[in-house]
Amino acid sequence: MKMIHGGVCAAKGFKAAGIHCGIRKNPGKKDLALIVSSVPASAAAVYTTNLVKGAPILVDKKHLENGIAQAIICNSGNANTCNANGIEIAEGMAALVEKHTGIPACDVLVSSTGVIGEPLSLDPVAAGMEELVASLSEVGSKDACHAIMTTDTKPKELALEFELGGKTCHIGGIAKGSGMIHPNMATMLVFITTDAAVSPAMIKKALSTDIQSTFNMLSVDGDTSTNDTVMLLANGLAGNPEITEEGPDFDVFMKALNTINMDLSRRIAADGEGATKLLECKLSGADSLEAARTAAKSVICSSLVKSAMFGEDANWGRVLCAIGYSGADVDVNKIDLSFKSAGGEVAVCKNGAGIPFSEELAAKVLHESEIEIIVSAGDGPFSATAWGCDLTYEYVKINGEYRT
Amino acid sequence: MKMIHGGVCAAKGFKAAGIHCGIRKNPGKKDLALIVSSVPASAAAVYTTNLVKGAPILVDKKHLENGIAQAIICNSGNANTCNANGIEIAEGMAALVEKHTGIPACDVLVSSTGVIGEPLSLDPVAAGMEELVASLSEVGSKDACHAIMTTDTKPKELALEFELGGKTCHIGGIAKGSGMIHPNMATMLVFITTDAAVSPAMIKKALSTDIQSTFNMLSVDGDTSTNDTVMLLANGLAGNPEITEEGPDFDVFMKALNTINMDLSRRIAADGEGATKLLECKLSGADSLEAARTAAKSVICSSLVKSAMFGEDANWGRVLCAIGYSGADVDVNKIDLSFKSAGGEVAVCKNGAGIPFSEELAAKVLHESEIEIIVSAGDGPFSATAWGCDLTYEYVKINGEYRT
Repeated sequence: MKMIHGGVCAAKGFKAAGIHCGIRKNPGKKDLALIVSSVPASAAAVYTTNLVKGAPILVDKKHLENGIAQAIICNSGNANTCNANGIEIAEGMAALVEKHTGIPACDVLVSSTGVIGEPLSLDPVAAGMEELVASLSEVGSKDACHAIMTTDTKPKELALEFELGGKTCHIGGIAKGSGMIHPNMATMLVFITTDAAVSPAMIKKALSTDIQSTFNMLSVDGDTSTNDTVMLLANGLAGNPEITEEGPDFDVFMKALNTINMDLSRRIAADGEGATKLLECKLSGADSLEAARTAAKSVICSSLVKSAMFGEDANWGRVLCAIGYSGADVDVNKIDLSFKSAGGEVAVCKNGAGIPFSEELAAKVLHESEIEIIVSAGDGPFSATAWGCDLTYEYVKINGEYRT
Repeated sequence: MKMIHGGVCAAKGFKAAGIHCGIRKNPGKKDLALIVSSVPASAAAVYTTNLVKGAPILVDKKHLENGIAQAIICNSGNANTCNANGIEIAEGMAALVEKHTGIPACDVLVSSTGVIGEPLSLDPVAAGMEELVASLSEVGSKDACHAIMTTDTKPKELALEFELGGKTCHIGGIAKGSGMIHPNMATMLVFITTDAAVSPAMIKKALSTDIQSTFNMLSVDGDTSTNDTVMLLANGLAGNPEITEEGPDFDVFMKALNTINMDLSRRIAADGEGATKLLECKLSGADSLEAARTAAKSVICSSLVKSAMFGEDANWGRVLCAIGYSGADVDVNKIDLSFKSAGGEVAVCKNGAGIPFSEELAAKVLHESEIEIIVSAGDGPFSATAWGCDLTYEYVKINGEYRT
């Protein structure tokens, strides 16, 4: 398995494009993305559990009933959520793709991200479609990635090459994150493509299993968005024997998918709104997987832990506090805790009580931009990793001014 | 029922004091408080649900097994939590009160607040006891209130006069809040005294019932402290017939208690770390009390709502988003929403979709320091109110630098 370039275009038969169509006022910021496969693909998606759901999600659920899709269209700058005519607009975007590419609207998936509750007009999308389709290319992943960004500061894409049944396969993804990130079944927007042949049922299984340990273990601000979506398209052009059941081939595919999703989760956390540091809580020794996940996620969600990390303050009591109120069944008197980074590792707590440590070493460890919070919760066999970021002045600034 | 002065000393037979004993370095900041009743009192307390519990809480649970207490000692500057010898220290504080007042240690309740995981020495407490006991007075509530403050900017105390069985009764309380405030069974530190005669069983019932709609509906930062405690002492000196069961007298007492607790909850929220605005989410029309409370609390806990309020931005989509992910069973298509303050009221959403509104009026409404977020969730009979505050640069600053 090796890293390659190309993002969502790394897999055979996929093209992508991103343009500015005018949903956003700034002409320098792309706001409309398109990803197409040359043939229909097995497709699966997972969405937000928020009861308030973006209109595109309701449309996608319908379009994915048969497990097949061939294109994804996505705009930024407007979430098309809490609008009276949202479904009509989302269906209209799919229809525009059909009109300009011939791909049936029912095989087009739609996503939107941006402000909630402002009407979205189809006009700029319609006006931009010709340019968008003309721009589709095998090197278009980066443009598509830029077009789905909102307050993200960095595009997030990666791709992998791996082998299945003697055939070289590829899988790649793009993601956007930044704010309102606390996925609960899915995350903001993630689009993944692969040329591996995987049946619709197995692609659904692969995706819904993998997100439990990747995107669902990620939080920027505890707010589960209304539009969270992860989409996975598998067009089979790699020529491997189609994966239709669990087994060694499925395991290889799961490993490739997990590598993509874990990396994108880390990148979304590191590029959280206002973030200066990636926080990674690695918790081991729990008596159940649920306890491990719940406790690890509670740590990276704590406003007090996040603020302390921003201030580079080894205020480890807040980590214990966050584990204690998480609801996870752990014995707090067995907890060992250390902070680790490129600057070294400093143990601060043993068996639930503080131990003397070098403040100088702690300062050096916490000065880095990627901080591991390493928790041993006992002798149990379960572990989990959660990703988050620090809470900064900039987060407050961005979100005090977002709409205006 | 009328407001009076005196805080925890308003009720007959209660004295209080607060001094600087040296747990904190700054000699200008009081750090040790004592509240005593001239006679043993019915007593009840509710504590944090955090699995990591301050050592004083373990001691208090033991001392309250018989439902009787006569004194409360409380230090700030150190939480006495996650320390190997914490219980010994907390018992030591109770023993010091016995030594200097004659009140049996088993009738002394202990509280601590401050940094977690730093050893607490008994030395400054022992050195300060003589001065502390000598300072006890009927006007000492404010000193005690100052002594329990950490990052609070304002002391929080109030008292009420009411009548039971033809006798004038009093109830008063002091509270500290500020950070790590997301009570789950109790809140940071709240001490309430009354001279009403109420049996231990009924005082326990009164307190555990009332906090569900007061302190448990309050959040500053989503972090449930390890030391949250609400204590209520009733010494019976008002001479009313003792309340030993539900009935009209119990209802009057509950109303007085609720008035105290609701007011202190609002003040803790308004004085949340870094806060510039009190947020009050009033949600009505829910189909269950649980749904009303869950949804209202989710709104005031949302980092995005809190940041928007700081920025005085009527970004109402975030309110709907927070209701949607709260887990409360509500029909999001029935939600009406408005913002209200001394500056006026502006309706922004009807039946789950945006409606045109005056940005000018919205700016005027949100410029005030107390903002009501008014949600109608449908035609159901249940409502709830939750209190929180905005998320500001100052919160991040305070918590990035707290320990150092």
